[in-house]
Amino acid sequence: MKNNVSRALPIVKYEQDSGFHKMEDAIAIEFPLTIQLDGEEFGTMLCTPSHMEELVIGFLASEGVIRLPSEIDSLSIDEGKGFAYVSLKRKLASDYRSMSKRVIGSCCGKSRQFYFSNDVKTAKTIFSKTKINPAQAFQLMKSLEDTSGHFQETGGLHNGALCTKEEVLVSRADIGRHNVLDKIYGYCLKNGVSLRDKVIVFSGRVSSEVLLKVSKIGVGIILSKSAPTTMGIQLAEDLGITLVGFARGKRFNIYSHPERIGD
Amino acid sequence: MKNNVSRALPIVKYEQDSGFHKMEDAIAIEFPLTIQLDGEEFGTMLCTPSHMEELVIGFLASEGVIRLPSEIDSLSIDEGKGFAYVSLKRKLASDYRSMSKRVIGSCCGKSRQFYFSNDVKTAKTIFSKTKINPAQAFQLMKSLEDTSGHFQETGGLHNGALCTKEEVLVSRADIGRHNVLDKIYGYCLKNGVSLRDKVIVFSGRVSSEVLLKVSKIGVGIILSKSAPTTMGIQLAEDLGITLVGFARGKRFNIYSHPERIGD
Repeated sequence: MKNNVSRALPIVKYEQDSGFHKMEDAIAIEFPLTIQLDGEEFGTMLCTPSHMEELVIGFLASEGVIRLPSEIDSLSIDEGKGFAYVSLKRKLASDYRSMSKRVIGSCCGKSRQFYFSNDVKTAKTIFSKTKINPAQAFQLMKSLEDTSGHFQETGGLHNGALCTKEEVLVSRADIGRHNVLDKIYGYCLKNGVSLRDKVIVFSGRVSSEVLLKVSKIGVGIILSKSAPTTMGIQLAEDLGITLVGFARGKRFNIYSHPERIGD
Repeated sequence: MKNNVSRALPIVKYEQDSGFHKMEDAIAIEFPLTIQLDGEEFGTMLCTPSHMEELVIGFLASEGVIRLPSEIDSLSIDEGKGFAYVSLKRKLASDYRSMSKRVIGSCCGKSRQFYFSNDVKTAKTIFSKTKINPAQAFQLMKSLEDTSGHFQETGGLHNGALCTKEEVLVSRADIGRHNVLDKIYGYCLKNGVSLRDKVIVFSGRVSSEVLLKVSKIGVGIILSKSAPTTMGIQLAEDLGITLVGFARGKRFNIYSHPERIGD
């Protein structure tokens, strides 16, 4: 199978005790993928070129362009040129461009922290009653680490997984934090995986953008190895999501909705 | 002095041996800053709200909107609303929007890896003859770590510094990797700091976007604690930049232009 994740390149390694040495090392591949939507350029993402169809589906759903993959008439990826050609069954309204404008004011019906109008449309408040206990949290984080061979190899990838309380259902890696979640979302949409009772386990920081993705995916618990930001916590609070960070070894911090983590 | 970098928030900490405990923890502040350029929305960045004037100047220069701060007629920041209002002495051409379109084809005169047309305009090939030795590289990396108290506190910030061969001139922190470099660039432009003979030391991964920022700033050596990507290395090779990664302890890897690192 072709390796889409890393490539061996020549480097010069220096170590104080032994000096300079030429060798090869595995480097994370970065790939520009431009989405053309009904003949117009929609955006360019820099990604790890694996699972690109799922990435495109997840990204379009997360941006509010589609709700279901069945709304796509055709999707083809030209890996040589780095283009994804998408045509929709029902064409996009011409005012979509204005959707990326910042929302000013406090009266958008959800959180005052929303700042783009497509987020107002696609972010969901989560009412999931799924709970996990600390032992399950540790086990899920360990399972994610067990699947992240590429990170250890290149040091350049983020990892994430969609899990039940007990096990990983699907895990994805990418150089972009958001892309990891879009690939997972695309996989779930394509395969009709239900999301309300699931948990997302993630290697990266939980910023507002990551938290919004979790809300759009529709999952009520995110466990991260890394730190959150203030806006990530505020949105998690507002959108009913349990945000757990610094999950390392046998400890973690709960930043919002602790009622879903219990003994 | 007001702390713009982190805020104390209530959390629930869990440790296997002692269970759940309520406490406060320092969280990295995430702040949406929208730039209005001559009355039109230019873009929204998520940033650490420190040194925002330098951030805006560096960002606009990096995007090719200005070359020097003297081209700005006025710049004011409304921290309450999260807006930066910029007016230019000479208005921007109305076709600027098209600048963010992807460049297709290989004939742009610089690297085939360029994919946005404003990068073609603003990225510079570096001909600096500045060299450093391994002892200087270790010392600069240590100096950066000594200035990164906020990262240790919140776990959520990237750090970078502009250095001579021997010492740090200015260091900046931000939740966004690119913002760190824009803040440094803005500082240098504002204060007329010469760049060709300098070194950038950086905590984050060196992707194509980071490498392009370094090229726009005009520095010939970047030392990073983290991994590069394939496109970061390719651009460094093409643009004449020495890219050093995984600088940890007494070792590092050189990925391009090793001639600037010598004993």
